[in-house]
This record gives sequence, structure tokens and C-alpha cells, in this order.
Amino acid sequence: MSFNSFGHVFRFTTWGESHGPALGAVVDGCPPGIPLDEAMLQHWLDKRRPGQNKNTTQRQEPDAVEILSGLYEGRTTGTPIQLLIRNTDQRSKDYGEILRTFRPGHADITYHQKYGLRDPRGGGRSSARETAARVAAGGVAREVLRALAPRVQIKGYMVQMGAKVIDRSRFDWDAIDGNDFWCPDPAVAAEWEDYLDYLRRKDHNSVGAMIEVVARGVPAGLGAPVYGKLDSDLASAMMSINAVKGVEIGDGMAVAALTGRDNADEIFMGDDGPVYGSNHAGGILGGISTGQDIVVRFSIKPTSSILSPRASITLEGQPTEVVTKGRHDPCVGIRAVPVGEAMMALVLADHLLLDRAQTGGVRGRIGPEAGDAPVG
Amino acid sequence: MSFNSFGHVFRFTTWGESHGPALGAVVDGCPPGIPLDEAMLQHWLDKRRPGQNKNTTQRQEPDAVEILSGLYEGRTTGTPIQLLIRNTDQRSKDYGEILRTFRPGHADITYHQKYGLRDPRGGGRSSARETAARVAAGGVAREVLRALAPRVQIKGYMVQMGAKVIDRSRFDWDAIDGNDFWCPDPAVAAEWEDYLDYLRRKDHNSVGAMIEVVARGVPAGLGAPVYGKLDSDLASAMMSINAVKGVEIGDGMAVAALTGRDNADEIFMGDDGPVYGSNHAGGILGGISTGQDIVVRFSIKPTSSILSPRASITLEGQPTEVVTKGRHDPCVGIRAVPVGEAMMALVLADHLLLDRAQTGGVRGRIGPEAGDAPVG
Amino acid sequence: MSFNSFGHVFRFTTWGESHGPALGAVVDGCPPGIPLDEAMLQHWLDKRRPGQNKNTTQRQEPDAVEILSGLYEGRTTGTPIQLLIRNTDQRSKDYGEILRTFRPGHADITYHQKYGLRDPRGGGRSSARETAARVAAGGVAREVLRALAPRVQIKGYMVQMGAKVIDRSRFDWDAIDGNDFWCPDPAVAAEWEDYLDYLRRKDHNSVGAMIEVVARGVPAGLGAPVYGKLDSDLASAMMSINAVKGVEIGDGMAVAALTGRDNADEIFMGDDGPVYGSNHAGGILGGISTGQDIVVRFSIKPTSSILSPRASITLEGQPTEVVTKGRHDPCVGIRAVPVGEAMMALVLADHLLLDRAQTGGVRGRIGPEAGDAPVG
Amino acid sequence: MSFNSFGHVFRFTTWGESHGPALGAVVDGCPPGIPLDEAMLQHWLDKRRPGQNKNTTQRQEPDAVEILSGLYEGRTTGTPIQLLIRNTDQRSKDYGEILRTFRPGHADITYHQKYGLRDPRGGGRSSARETAARVAAGGVAREVLRALAPRVQIKGYMVQMGAKVIDRSRFDWDAIDGNDFWCPDPAVAAEWEDYLDYLRRKDHNSVGAMIEVVARGVPAGLGAPVYGKLDSDLASAMMSINAVKGVEIGDGMAVAALTGRDNADEIFMGDDGPVYGSNHAGGILGGISTGQDIVVRFSIKPTSSILSPRASITLEGQPTEVVTKGRHDPCVGIRAVPVGEAMMALVLADHLLLDRAQTGGVRGRIGPEAGDAPVG
Repeated sequence: MSFNSFGHVFRFTTWGESHGPALGAVVDGCPPGIPLDEAMLQHWLDKRRPGQNKNTTQRQEPDAVEILSGLYEGRTTGTPIQLLIRNTDQRSKDYGEILRTFRPGHADITYHQKYGLRDPRGGGRSSARETAARVAAGGVAREVLRALAPRVQIKGYMVQMGAKVIDRSRFDWDAIDGNDFWCPDPAVAAEWEDYLDYLRRKDHNSVGAMIEVVARGVPAGLGAPVYGKLDSDLASAMMSINAVKGVEIGDGMAVAALTGRDNADEIFMGDDGPVYGSNHAGGILGGISTGQDIVVRFSIKPTSSILSPRASITLEGQPTEVVTKGRHDPCVGIRAVPVGEAMMALVLADHLLLDRAQTGGVRGRIGPEAGDAPVG
Repeated sequence: MSFNSFGHVFRFTTWGESHGPALGAVVDGCPPGIPLDEAMLQHWLDKRRPGQNKNTTQRQEPDAVEILSGLYEGRTTGTPIQLLIRNTDQRSKDYGEILRTFRPGHADITYHQKYGLRDPRGGGRSSARETAARVAAGGVAREVLRALAPRVQIKGYMVQMGAKVIDRSRFDWDAIDGNDFWCPDPAVAAEWEDYLDYLRRKDHNSVGAMIEVVARGVPAGLGAPVYGKLDSDLASAMMSINAVKGVEIGDGMAVAALTGRDNADEIFMGDDGPVYGSNHAGGILGGISTGQDIVVRFSIKPTSSILSPRASITLEGQPTEVVTKGRHDPCVGIRAVPVGEAMMALVLADHLLLDRAQTGGVRGRIGPEAGDAPVG
Repeated sequence: MSFNSFGHVFRFTTWGESHGPALGAVVDGCPPGIPLDEAMLQHWLDKRRPGQNKNTTQRQEPDAVEILSGLYEGRTTGTPIQLLIRNTDQRSKDYGEILRTFRPGHADITYHQKYGLRDPRGGGRSSARETAARVAAGGVAREVLRALAPRVQIKGYMVQMGAKVIDRSRFDWDAIDGNDFWCPDPAVAAEWEDYLDYLRRKDHNSVGAMIEVVARGVPAGLGAPVYGKLDSDLASAMMSINAVKGVEIGDGMAVAALTGRDNADEIFMGDDGPVYGSNHAGGILGGISTGQDIVVRFSIKPTSSILSPRASITLEGQPTEVVTKGRHDPCVGIRAVPVGEAMMALVLADHLLLDRAQTGGVRGRIGPEAGDAPVG
Repeated sequence: MSFNSFGHVFRFTTWGESHGPALGAVVDGCPPGIPLDEAMLQHWLDKRRPGQNKNTTQRQEPDAVEILSGLYEGRTTGTPIQLLIRNTDQRSKDYGEILRTFRPGHADITYHQKYGLRDPRGGGRSSARETAARVAAGGVAREVLRALAPRVQIKGYMVQMGAKVIDRSRFDWDAIDGNDFWCPDPAVAAEWEDYLDYLRRKDHNSVGAMIEVVARGVPAGLGAPVYGKLDSDLASAMMSINAVKGVEIGDGMAVAALTGRDNADEIFMGDDGPVYGSNHAGGILGGISTGQDIVVRFSIKPTSSILSPRASITLEGQPTEVVTKGRHDPCVGIRAVPVGEAMMALVLADHLLLDRAQTGGVRGRIGPEAGDAPVG
């Protein structure tokens, strides 16, 4: 939301470049007394870690996180939590050529234009390695949610790679963790594997992807109109992830084709409050959570670092061709799954705290006991 | 970004409800010396104003803006600019029934759950009337851009209503202002008119829409990684508009289907800096503007206020059917066009100032004179 | 804290100039369900209002506040509360001379240097009339405190005018509201009256003052280290008031002369938690409230608008003498008392909400039941 | 301003505890192209470093700063700069007793009450070791000022220890760096040395101090009314330093005793713009710098960690006596001098950038060429 910080009251700031000595995040505003240790965070970092299978970059990074502050005897103290991840696999090489040309589709040129200089080593600050810091911070957010809203569950998965989309009729939650793509449709996952192999080995190309992240068990009432809407913050959060070009809530872009009758999620009374006949809204109305599943999708563009030559210019304005060698993901979308989950956790933890700032977490009642509103 | 405020250094806060005495916006951080008067703002408010043709709500509001502060002798002084718009067509009626039920697809229920009480008159704060305040604030942003980045041009238009999408081969800039739908394809506009007529008169229904907003002439270098990316702020800005469910930059969700070779916008040297062979990126790389057209699209869901009955519950949890009478837009997307333009202007003005805070507006050079970076 | 806004989660933005049509404040983040009406705010505005006795400016302003948004049926809805105060006694005159010279000790010159232009009518934005908006916003904060922390009581009073300081041995709470100076020492108040009469009628001069504001009944635990300390925010709040040049907490500047033995407020166990043998700390340790009285003092410089000539320069750099005619307070400190109270209320309401964001308002226990810390 | 972050556009966040593995600061929003290395920062950290003479704590910390990000080939890149300082002299001991009692005058009790738990090792987050991180961040701010406003010079010094105040008639700039107290009056410095010796060795006591920080060569026009005033931010900045209880600008609390005639700093035309006959204002009018010296003073209370017993209570509420052994500064004010300088640099760098955001750094002219204001 503001340079390198995100969040209102549960706020984190990331720092670090791809090939510097380390990168990390400082998490501020965390409630006190939350059990936390490095293993809890490492679990999620391992999910994002490169080099785990042939479908992601072969860069080998342990991505071991160290907690440098904010803990005492295994619990948070309410003070800033510094999460540090050392870079270990920065291969030394000559960056002169990279500094003198601009990869088409890459932030090389805009960083140069904005700042007049840039760190060319592995993309510097624009590298997707920054997302390791988010995943670590997201791990803290998950523990906050576990303590304060224990029913919340967050799950991300890939629903499209290139032209190949999952078949929703085969959707299987339990399959998501069972393949290299976090794919809920094992049949399409097998096709993706072949396709990636072809792209990497034959076509010297890369491909885009679409990720969906769902949060279940989110209480109704999170979100703050008008410019702090839950969906507005989710859109900002997801669009801040490298290579993301679109964000949808619920039916997303498809609502343009719906009529009001179709789009209205009808309301019924359940045992434990309102229930809904459908979820076109993706769990958010007027910027505030309904208690339904929160459903967010985002697209990831194919990496611009490919072995196929593309036309470009040099720093001096001369025409050239760029071919990017090195250890690049043919589909960066795969590793964006845990990143999207982390951003969901971070936004929800922040809004949980922001809501209790304003309302004290007190809710307007629906049902026989509905009556005078309590004072928050 | 934070409750009812948006922006980093050029920041505005909106206030007011649909049926209160007035609503408005206070714009803070505006540069001094910018020529400004009410007529400049009224121009844009008139574009958004309801009741101008049969395709929008028949509520009659002059939406006359008054500037209460921040001006001296026709120029901004650098102090807060309060923009006030009186509500004049609030019909008095009994809101008891509205208070006791929840419209499916509407923020009624989430406002109740969050706050324990709500202003039922015309939707209160959740009404799209809030967007009048944004349009007024956006008018100030346009004058800032006119003074500091005079080449910037902003244009919004509708590209889809329901299932009917414009034919890009018929795209005509000059046609946009020539129909009630801000549609660049007059042929489809005629179809839309018939369709809306049917929805309103026969089907008692409403329909969604898709809006595209383009900003031309934006200098390269605006945007601030990582969480203050230009596209991250645009996503937040557009998603904060009532009824928006998806936001795309450039190729948007479609990048999931692209390969890296297709997606890379090739770079060539033009007379006046880099030029590009395509614009899949929508004018933004790494969160920073490239100098190409900035292209943003967003979807608008169909209004939930329709004459067709939908299942719902009462405050006491009893089942009921809701039919919404009153003066509602069958396609709220039409009036979202000037709102999207306003948000684009507001984000760009903010980033223009934020960029000169950090870099002084100095740019890294490309071309024969490229050399040591200047100090910003 | 940021241009014209103050506060973290309970945040207000003021706007307006001395001689424009109106000024006001928008209060954002207010909890829902708080009873509020204009009379509650008017009470405090009347206390600050000019022209009530011969000791303050003879400008006659009713300072009637209108609430334009954020209320429904007498209670706050959680949406922004716009408070509008019309200016009614702006005498028209020729401001050309004021625009062409700079009053020594006044913001005329710095506004000109910063912005290149300024509103000369009554000092424009730099006028103390801005404080009316704070007092109105402070009235909202008081109602939030009344609902959420009903034991809090806030009281401001004058402890010094010129060289004449109150005698603390005569301190009488009940006397504060009984004189025109909010003075707890009636004997010195009588001296002040004579002195002001002399300054106004004979000496054509003005004089400084010192104000003390005390908040009783503030719960322990408010404040957020390190840069959101309660005292850091109070210092910022008070220093933002026109003409303030110093802020003290507890013993303030005098702690420089104390030893550690003298300064340590010894702790004892009371019936209801810790009690203290003294209050050198002014109720704040480590940026967090102790539960003791919060004691803040600030100095107010004498107004620079006096009938005595002072050397200055013109816009063109020529030497000149400035004599300020008009309706000016000989001691602006008097009317700063309700302003200081308002800022105290605003800071406390904000920190009350900020604290419950992070900790849920749960407190670490001291006493027989002390044990494992709860999770906030 | 917000938990552990400070600044508007040049913003830093500190983290870390006294006895954790490390502490540090992340600086965000730094302009690109600024020459920076660790030695530039170490210079200032060495000035603050403990254990350098008998007048400060005997804790031995090299306080070596490492820059982990934001640099490329010796210049800032515009991305976050992480500054890390390892703690090396954390003596292991049993903290059980400290956890079970509260030092009078210390943040022990308020941290416990707010958070329900606290890190007792060396005071945890409330330790003055946090100020090492500020000094490092302040070193970055100094380099920004050196590049963008090279005439700015910042100097801090001690003007009072206990009852012993410097004699301003003996004020000698060149003496400041020549004694262990940063004292501009060598005669009083000798007295302070004897006094501290007595306090430490005989009296088992500590003492307060007063620090003055001056910034010369600051351009007119920095500061942003009303809640982002330069003095408001300076007050917040200085009050956030451990043990500070009062902040003054210019004549500070003493303005209460002045008349308007005395207080008005008369204006004359100099060769290079306005000059002033005096500086009661401390270089700030209406929250905006005048171009004169900016003069800030703050008081530091005596440390509460003394060998003399003070009455207190245990966690269980039982009466006890507290005697604090260990390596504590008898006058923490000495080491506050470089901290105050750092905060001055940080506030000025932030306001320099904030000003060019809004005005582009363009100034209203005074003199023969005064005329139409430029557009910022």
C-alpha cells in the first residue's frame, strides 16, 4: 500500500534483493501471546521453495527463516517480528550485459527509467524472490488467525496453465497437495506436466497461469468501506505479486455477463446465522465479508526470461536481441500458489484487527434475538 | 486504502450517505497554484449525473459541487479542498421494511452484521452516490495532471453489457461521447439500448457490464514497488468502486493463456525514447509505468435492486421474498465510466507526486546520452 | 500526522480557512452505535467560541456545528462523520496590504515561501479558527470515550500567563469553570484580568500562556511503542495547535534536574491494581499509560498580531513596519484550553481503538491471579 | 508515528530487543543514487556506542552495522535499506526475579499490563538499545540531506545535567566534540564529570539531562500544515526517544512569559532572502521552516535502573524493594545526543521529500522579482 509496506494495523514491510546477502520482512502490530517459532514459518516457505522438482527453477535455496525479534519463550510479545532469509545460491557472474540491455516484458527498463540505476543481479528487488519474505510474513498471519479466528482455513491452487483449464466437475480438494502444481484436477495436472516439459526442453518458452485462493470460515463483518474494503485490499495484495495482471473476486470479470436475478445470492436462515444459495459474490458484499467462502483468483503472466530471442534495445538505444539464459521457472504460477495464500492470510489478519479496533468484534445479530444494536 | 481515505501524498477522503443532507470529498496534499473552479469539476459530475436518459435511474440530482476551502482567487493554495454536493432528491418514505429485510446481493446484510445498525435510506453509505464525491475529487486530480503532466489523457468506455461485447474492429474513439453508453462501437450500443429497454420494462431485471479506462501520455517511471505498485493501487482503486468484482491490467486474466514469447512486448528505439511492438503489459512493468497507454478494465455486477422477487430473510431470521421498487439503474455500469476515469486520474496524480518525492522526477536516460545516473 | 489528518484508526481530517464559507472536520473510523447529536458537540464549541468576554477577540462567530453524515437516528453508523461550521463574521476588506507584507512571528512569510501564494483573509488556513474543527471532532472523541471508557475525565486549565504563574497550593478544580481564564487559582485569575486589560488598552501588546490538560481514569495499557507512543502522539497533537512551542509530559523539562531516586514513582498495591506514590511520569511509562492521571502541559506564544509596530519587509523585499489592527486575542492561550482538551480526547480515543486492535483490550494481570498471559 | 515506523515518504521501521540476536532498521522511500556505505553509518553509531568512557554503561557492544539491501555498487537504488546490528554482549543470567517485579519509573509494568507478557532481558524492546537502530537510519538521512540540501548541518549537545546548566556566554561550538558530554561549555563539563562520579560511586543514583539539537542551513518551506507541521513531527520524533519527557522548539515553554512585542522575530532583507533579528521561533512559523536555525530541546529523565532501593510490588501484588544491579548509564542523556541528531536528520529528510511531492521544491519569491507564483 505504501512503498514496501502493506497493511493497516497488522502491517509488514519487506526488504532485500535477489542476490544480496539476505532478504526478509518485519511484521508490526502482531497481537501478543501468539505461539510462534521458525518451524511454523518454514512449513510455508518450503512449499514455495525453488528447486524442488523439475517444473520450477533449479536455483537451490534452503530459504531458512530466522526470527530475530518479537518473540519471548515461544510467544509473540507485541513488538516487531523480523524474519530474515539468507540468500545462499547467488552465482557470481558478469552482469555487464544485463545492465546494458532490457528484457522485453521485464521490469529492467522501468526500474532504470525511474531510478536511473538498478541492481541487475537476478532482477534485484523486482525478482520474485521477494515473495519468500511475504510467505514468511504470511506464516505469522496464519498463527494470528489460528489464535483469533480458528475456523479460518486458506487454500490456494492452480486452475489454469496456458490454454489448459481444470475441469471443475473433477475438483478434488484432497488432490491439491498431491501433485507438483497444487492442482485440484489430477487429470489436467498430468497434461500440464507434459506441456511444461515441452516448453522447457523443446520450445524454449514459458507460460502463464491462473491461481485461485479460497478462505473458509472467515467471520462475517470483516472489511471497512469505502477505500479499505476487504476486496479492495485483496485486489491490491494480489496485484502486488510479481507477474499478476488481473484479480477477480467471486465471479469476477464474468459478472459483466450476468443479470441481477442470476447474480443475487439468495439468503436463507441456517442454524448458525444466514446461509446463501450461491456465492457469486465470492464472500464479500459492500466490501465486507458475508461469512461465505472468500474466493479470489489472479492471473500470472509467463516469465519474460526465456531462451527464445526477443527484439529489444541497449542502454544506448541500439537495437539488439535478448535471450535469457539461467535458472528460470517455465511457469512461475506454480510457486505463486503459496504466495497467494500468504497474501490472503495477511489481509485477513489485518482486517480482523482493524475490525476489532472499530467495532470491538461485536456483531449485529440476525434471528429471534435481533434487537437494539450493541455499542462496539 | 484506509477506511474512507485513498492516496499516499495526494489523498482524498469521501463522506456522506445517499439520503443525508450532503456528501463530499476533502482533497489533501494538492500542489499549490493550480487553477481550479467549480465549473471544472461540474463538467465531470454532469457526465456521471443520474436521470439524464432513460437508461439510468430517474432520480433527479443536480449534483452541483461547491468548493468550500483550499482556493484563493481561482488557484489552489496547497491546503485541503472541501468539495460539497447537496442531496436534493431524497424522497421521504417509510424505511421500516427495508430495515427489516436484506436484499440478496446487496451490502444491507454485511453492514448490519458489521456495525449492528445501518442507514437504510437509499443504501446509506453503501450507495453508489458516494461515487459522485470521487468524480469531484477526480476533477481536481485532472487539473493537477493538466498542470504537471499535460500530455496525460484519460478516457473510459464500456466494452461489454451482459453477453454483448464490443467488436474491437469497429472501435471508434470519436464515437464514445456520442451515445448514452460511452460505447466505442455504435453498432453494439444500439443493441444495448434495446436490451436495456427489455430488461427494464419486460424482464424486471438488471445486467452487468465491463468498463475499460485508458490513460495516454503517462510518463515512464510512475509507480513504487513493491506494495505501492501503480497497478496494485489501480486495482485497489477500481475494486473500491461499488459493484466491481474484477480488475485487469493490459491483457489481464488472459495472460494465463499466453506464452512468454507472445507476452513479451518487444522494445524498439523511437525518436523520443523506447517504443514497444505491443502492449500486453497495459503500460506497467514491475509496478512502474512504461510510457505506453495504461489500460485498466473492470467488471460491474448487475444491481441487486430489481423488481423480480428473490428469496431472503428478515432481521428476525424469517424467510421472505424481496422485491426492490424505486429508481434504480438497470445497468449501473454506464455511470461507472466517469467513476473509473476519476479513479485513474486520482491514482496518477498521487503517483506523480509520490514519484517526485522520491526521485525528484529525474529519469534514467536511454539513448546515446545514457551514462551515470543522476541523483534524484 | 499527515498533512491535515490526525490519528491511526480513529482519524480526523480538518479543512477550511478563516474567511472562507465554512470549515470543518471529517471523523473516520468512529465505532458504530455511539449516541451523538449536534448539541453534544456544540457544548465544547461554545467553550472555545470567540467574543464571549472582553479577554478574547471580539469577532462574533456562533460556531454552530452541523453533522452532515455518519449518523442514523441519533447514533453513529461507523461511516465518516462530517462536521461543518459556517463562517459568518468575515468582514470584507482590502487584503492587498496584508498580501504585500509579512507579520513578524506569523506564518504569513512561510506560507508564501512554501506555496508561492496564500489566502490572506484572516490568516487563511494558518488561522486559529482551524481549532474550531478540532474541538468539534474532539466532541465526537469524548462520546466514544464515554461509551467505551466511561471513567475517563478530561480537564484543561491555564497555569501561567506571562510571568504570572498559579500557586499550586491554591489549586481548586471547582474554580476552573468559574472564571474567564479556566484558571484553578482564582487569585491569580484576578491579576490576569488586570494585566490583560493593561496589555490591550495601554500597552498594545499580547502575552503568552501555559495550559495543562489532565486525563483521569485512563486505563493502563494505552500506547504503542516505539513511534506510536502515547506521549509521542500527545506531543505531536499539542504541538500541532497554533502558537504552541513546547510540550511536557508529567514533570516535563524539569526531569533534567531530577535524580533517579527522586524521579522513580514508587509502586504499591491498591484495591484495584497498582497505585503510585507520585506521578513524575505524568501517567506514561515506555509510551504506555500506567492508569495514573495523564498530565500534559504546553506553552502558547503571544499572538504576533499586535498594535505595536514591528520591523518587517514587503513582498518586494523593502523594509517596512507592520502594525496589525483588527480583532485579535491579547492572550490566545485562553481559547487554547478547550483545544488542548479536544486533542487529548482525540488521542485517547484513537489509542483506545488502536490498543483493542492489537491486544483486544485484554490486560496482563497483577495480583494473586497473575499467571499465564491471555492471548489478545 | 505508527507502531514501530516513522516518517511520511522517507519512512523507517525499527525492530529488535536489547538481548535478542540483533536489532535494526529498514529505511524505505530513500531517493536513488545516493552514495552510501557502512562506514558512513558507523561514524554515527560509534558516537552513540556504550562503553567508551566511564560515564556511560560498561556494556561493550561494537554496534557494527551491516547494510543488507538497497545498495548497488555503493549507491542507493531506491529500494528498502535494511540496517542490521548484531547484539554481542548479552550476558546470560536468570531473569526470573526481573520478571516477577517491576522497576519504579520503568516500562516493565506497562508492557506487562498492555501485552500480558514481556521480554525481561535487558528491558527487551523498551531498552535504549533501540536507539542504535535510529542512529543508523539517521545516518542514511544525513546522506540524503548531503545530496539534496548540502547546506544543512545538524549538531546536538548537552545543555544541562541535574541542576547544573551551561553558561550560554561560554558557548563554544568547537568544544562540543572535545569532551565526553558533547558539552559546549567545557567548564561545566568538568563539573558534570565530578558529579557523575559521585552519583555512580557514592550516591548509587542517576540524573536527568537536557539536550539541544540545532539544524543550520535548512531551506525555508519545509513542513506541512496542519497535522504534518515540521514542529509537530519533531515533537513526536523527540518524544519517542526513551526517557524524554518534554520537547521545546525555539523559546519553548518560556514563550508563556513573553509578550508579543518581545516574541516577534523582526524581519529584514538580506542578500539572499529574508533575515531575522532574533529566533524565538526556533526556525519554524506555522509549522513551516523559515530558513533560520531550527532549534529543538528535550529533557531526558534519570534512568530508573539504580542501586538505591525503591518500593515496588511483585507480579502477585506483594510489596517489595527493587535494587537494579547491572551496567546502567548514570546519565542516559549523554548518549541521547547522537540520537536526537539522528531524529532531526530523519525528520528533515522526510520533509524535504514530502515538500517536493507537493510543491516540487519551488519557492515563493521575496524581493524585486516577486510576482506571480509558480505552479509547483
